[in-house]
Amino acid sequence: MSHSSLLIHDIGTIWQYDPQASLTWRAGEGMRSIQSLEDAWILCEGDRISAVGQMDSCPDHQGPRLDAGGRHILPTWVDSHTHLVFARTREEEFRYRLEGMSYEEIARRGGGILNSAYRLRETPEDQLLEDAARRLHEVIRTGTGAIEIKSGYGLTLDSEMKMLRVIRRLRDQSPIPIRATLLAAHALPREYQDDREGYIRLIIDDILPRVADEGLADYVDAFCEKAFFQPDEMDRILEAGSRYGLKGKVHTNQFTSIGGIQTAIRRGALSVDHLEIATEADMGDLLDSGVYPVLLPSAPFFLRDHYPPARTMIDRGLGVALASDFNPGTSPSGNLPLVIALACTQMRMLPEEAIHAATINGACTLEWEDRLGSVAPGKLANLILTPAVQSPAYYPYSFGSDWVEKVILNGKEFISKT
Amino acid sequence: MSHSSLLIHDIGTIWQYDPQASLTWRAGEGMRSIQSLEDAWILCEGDRISAVGQMDSCPDHQGPRLDAGGRHILPTWVDSHTHLVFARTREEEFRYRLEGMSYEEIARRGGGILNSAYRLRETPEDQLLEDAARRLHEVIRTGTGAIEIKSGYGLTLDSEMKMLRVIRRLRDQSPIPIRATLLAAHALPREYQDDREGYIRLIIDDILPRVADEGLADYVDAFCEKAFFQPDEMDRILEAGSRYGLKGKVHTNQFTSIGGIQTAIRRGALSVDHLEIATEADMGDLLDSGVYPVLLPSAPFFLRDHYPPARTMIDRGLGVALASDFNPGTSPSGNLPLVIALACTQMRMLPEEAIHAATINGACTLEWEDRLGSVAPGKLANLILTPAVQSPAYYPYSFGSDWVEKVILNGKEFISKT
Repeated sequence: MSHSSLLIHDIGTIWQYDPQASLTWRAGEGMRSIQSLEDAWILCEGDRISAVGQMDSCPDHQGPRLDAGGRHILPTWVDSHTHLVFARTREEEFRYRLEGMSYEEIARRGGGILNSAYRLRETPEDQLLEDAARRLHEVIRTGTGAIEIKSGYGLTLDSEMKMLRVIRRLRDQSPIPIRATLLAAHALPREYQDDREGYIRLIIDDILPRVADEGLADYVDAFCEKAFFQPDEMDRILEAGSRYGLKGKVHTNQFTSIGGIQTAIRRGALSVDHLEIATEADMGDLLDSGVYPVLLPSAPFFLRDHYPPARTMIDRGLGVALASDFNPGTSPSGNLPLVIALACTQMRMLPEEAIHAATINGACTLEWEDRLGSVAPGKLANLILTPAVQSPAYYPYSFGSDWVEKVILNGKEFISKT
Repeated sequence: MSHSSLLIHDIGTIWQYDPQASLTWRAGEGMRSIQSLEDAWILCEGDRISAVGQMDSCPDHQGPRLDAGGRHILPTWVDSHTHLVFARTREEEFRYRLEGMSYEEIARRGGGILNSAYRLRETPEDQLLEDAARRLHEVIRTGTGAIEIKSGYGLTLDSEMKMLRVIRRLRDQSPIPIRATLLAAHALPREYQDDREGYIRLIIDDILPRVADEGLADYVDAFCEKAFFQPDEMDRILEAGSRYGLKGKVHTNQFTSIGGIQTAIRRGALSVDHLEIATEADMGDLLDSGVYPVLLPSAPFFLRDHYPPARTMIDRGLGVALASDFNPGTSPSGNLPLVIALACTQMRMLPEEAIHAATINGACTLEWEDRLGSVAPGKLANLILTPAVQSPAYYPYSFGSDWVEKVILNGKEFISKT
């Protein structure tokens, strides 16, 4: 049996080097330093990294070679929270907001999540797929090498199924691994405005069983927030999900702290995402809970709102993952290098903490730590080539530069900008 | 006499269309709308735009053609405030700051402007030129089509001359126009710490005459700030500059309001740059002063500091220009699309206001309004091709996307990313 191979040689430094493929969730002080290997080579066989070493022991490889010319290597990002499948951008709402229009007024004009839902229902599946594939290619250009995508702009049985089918079809053609999350509890659709219970029942009795039956989702999500779903409603959805083996990855504490974190912990959720408003008690409860916090700084950047208290969380011993929240309403960007820059400049995370958060910790929140998130033998050969840097601080420091020069996916050069 | 020509056809929309080449400084309400032309073509002859029209009158051009395929066109950015020539990035200081180190401590470790000055003095002229040329190419990739560059990391006669010679050599090889500004009054060099007057005299009696004699600068600048140069010191430098025909473009009100704006107005400066701290009185004085305010939002973004009160300034009837402040200490980015996104998301400028500010208003602050800043017959054919957008709001809204698909310079395709 033959398969392709690639030797990448004359690498200046490999960052997030993981010789035993043993790296896992990093927290607190453990986020402050990352392992590296200088003057190195990486051998890829098939879609995997088969070996890593230093140039004095460089193998005499007969197949394709890539001369890194002293460039540095990072593992690709694992973007563990996105809404990449959507029908249309919503820049007109952005303009309304800049003009000082209130959220209520924007909603009256058909804005918000429901706007995306109505547009999505009208958009053919093939069009959704084509647009999502274009966005996926765009985020790969910024170094994303694995991604999670949520439903949640359907809000009916048929449309949630449609979204999840688009994610499935995207996964089948994607060069990077994709996890799918059912987010039927994203907003209360207009037809259920006077019947919350009816919509919760639709999710639990109809949508969840169908989605599970067709194997269309890996996880289940709910938007726990005063104006969206209450902790007890999310609790019922997580409980129902668990009956089908779907772990929870939930939106909570974006605008208010109403007990979503505690509910998620009690239900053994995989991650709690957003946490712009995390109280001392919330942080205390998360410690040793086994539930991963995921922070999404692009959203508060775009909304000019509070950032999550990342510095405090890490100083207290918590670990965090960073993700893009790519969506058309509150974070129209899937650019992880910019997320890392926001994490450092706006939340005072250290560069090494941000790299952990966007690689291995992201991988953990998708249960992919054995496969992604570090440069390790046996893991997927998904790699970023950057210029030679003095230290990882260069990456967030150069917040406006495109320092992702090449992206290797599955052991092959996929993007080259030079 | 023959020269090259290029027909760009099937353009979806030209933004900042200026049929009479009459556009000039826009202020207040005048910044809210931009003129556009749909379904258009642009004919470039030599390095200029020779004609613009709609597709129903498209000329039967025999020379090279570029099919825009419905894409949209913007004029390139005019970045009117940068420190693009420097010796080395300073990410280590960024890391110190994230770790909570004070500015004083960072300065004791050799950080700050003086750090860049000492490094620059040791760096050969050819190396400075090579690094600056690489950065210039990088900012052109983001759509910059004209730029101003300051000295100010020399702080001796020889080193200021060296920096200005680098800018001159860069200009001679650059595909985009460059203005040079003498900023000897950027910081007090260590050897003059106990002799402020000695350094001011060095600038006025030695540096300015030499620079003027060799024609190395278009403007003169001073950093008017409590910890740097006082208004009366700046006043003397502006007065001296005026004797050589060098107008002032000054750094003022970045951290404090100590009268720099009023001094600049009195001396007939061309622009006052930064203005993070602009009081009601400062804004009142600027109205009808004829002095252009230039805002640099990347610096407060990177420093997590106050943004200039752009919304209030425009609401009061002022116009503003936007620039990058590209420098290794406080704004290590020359990415104008990101500056526009910061202007809208963080300062609540409207998309059309931000586009005026980064094009025609930037051109005015370099006295290039007859040559740049709009899509007009007779102006330089420096253009950006973007995807087809619903409205200009798309540009700041898509803050993490690289929507500069092609850059045309001097009537020729210079960058193509597709």
